[in-house]
Amino acid sequence: MTQGWVVVAGLGPGDDALVTPEVTAALAQATDVIGYIPYVARVAPRPGLTLHPTDNRVELDRAQHALDLAATGARVVIVSSGDPGVFAMASALFEALEARPDRHDTEIRILPGITAMLAAAARAGAPLGHDFCAINLSDNLKPFAEVERRLRHAARGGFAMAFYNPRSKSRPHQFGQVLEILRQECEPARLILFARAVSTPEERLTCVPLSEAQDSMADMRTVVIVGNEATRRVGRWIYTPRAVAP
Amino acid sequence: MTQGWVVVAGLGPGDDALVTPEVTAALAQATDVIGYIPYVARVAPRPGLTLHPTDNRVELDRAQHALDLAATGARVVIVSSGDPGVFAMASALFEALEARPDRHDTEIRILPGITAMLAAAARAGAPLGHDFCAINLSDNLKPFAEVERRLRHAARGGFAMAFYNPRSKSRPHQFGQVLEILRQECEPARLILFARAVSTPEERLTCVPLSEAQDSMADMRTVVIVGNEATRRVGRWIYTPRAVAP
Repeated sequence: MTQGWVVVAGLGPGDDALVTPEVTAALAQATDVIGYIPYVARVAPRPGLTLHPTDNRVELDRAQHALDLAATGARVVIVSSGDPGVFAMASALFEALEARPDRHDTEIRILPGITAMLAAAARAGAPLGHDFCAINLSDNLKPFAEVERRLRHAARGGFAMAFYNPRSKSRPHQFGQVLEILRQECEPARLILFARAVSTPEERLTCVPLSEAQDSMADMRTVVIVGNEATRRVGRWIYTPRAVAP
Repeated sequence: MTQGWVVVAGLGPGDDALVTPEVTAALAQATDVIGYIPYVARVAPRPGLTLHPTDNRVELDRAQHALDLAATGARVVIVSSGDPGVFAMASALFEALEARPDRHDTEIRILPGITAMLAAAARAGAPLGHDFCAINLSDNLKPFAEVERRLRHAARGGFAMAFYNPRSKSRPHQFGQVLEILRQECEPARLILFARAVSTPEERLTCVPLSEAQDSMADMRTVVIVGNEATRRVGRWIYTPRAVAP
């Protein structure tokens, strides 16, 4: 029996031109691909490859399944969108591994990808060109009070901010609270970028001052970037200067 | 005369298997490649391509040069390591553009890349698997008091942290101050990862508790990742769980 392995691979934001050769090579060697339905749908079927598309919110099941398959000799790629280490499947795999000491010698590789905030920033200019933070706004796995605490520290620390999972059908009102907190902490002219489905045919970018931001500007496929106080427009672009005045 | 353009492209951390096809395609179309000497050295010479390697700390000159070349019809790629939008050349290009309204109609594209912190995180496990921030520790362009303010807010907000440019010959002692601030804000067992030259033959990863961290563990080619209070080891990996307890 050949040695099995588990790779967690980032497919980037959507365009195949943003998939690294390292990830493409791993997919070519795989016997099994596991992941959320729309991500597995990006992998071309071929003889010898079994696709295991699963629904959302079963991350731990997927990770356990991957470890079990690898123990039988399978070469398993768990696909994530973006980068697997940013609010995606890598942490779930290590949670599953922690629960199974008998699997600790599994060969594992995490292959980075282009994460949504960096694809969005590139499309808009360079809004994350200075110190910044990334916050998952979903309260599935943390209380909203923790989101609020992080928002206020990020604003008071002068960080630009990128928000993942800003709004979903099950949390229609929470992003409005986020905007309200930002309005308490930041000036009305602060630039905020709504970047939807970057690098796909549905891509749409909207940049407004915080005073004009509406919670309806975000949905499940949107990453939101809030500039720092120096972020500004130049032509059709927005960017954050590299320097902070003393 | 054909229409010129400027692309700012991220070459990733070092391994060509981490360069996106989009970047490879832009380099194949370029007439001119501009950038810091070691990054330009990664681009293969060919007939019709002029390489313009320059020393460090001339980012604005490079950006102006690129805009000037594009105005004459050149197809210019400015190469950055990692992602051009993260402490790299994209912001410098927009600073140069801001100073030259007559160049505002230049065709510009920013092509994202695998930034050092995400390559390092992937190699070590998933230490940035929850909310995190990225801080440039260089005080070339901001006062150290601003670095300190951001460190304290990041720690108090519960963010994991990634530090770029932690230490250089011109700032040998500053990273020691950073460690001292972290020791004031975080518990001694907090995990800290020193990831040097990830994806190159010189790659070296070291993970220690904050109490054992030494400033000599970082140099110019190191990205430093500080976990949050839940970051822990599993087997040879470190990871940050996705959940925060209520």
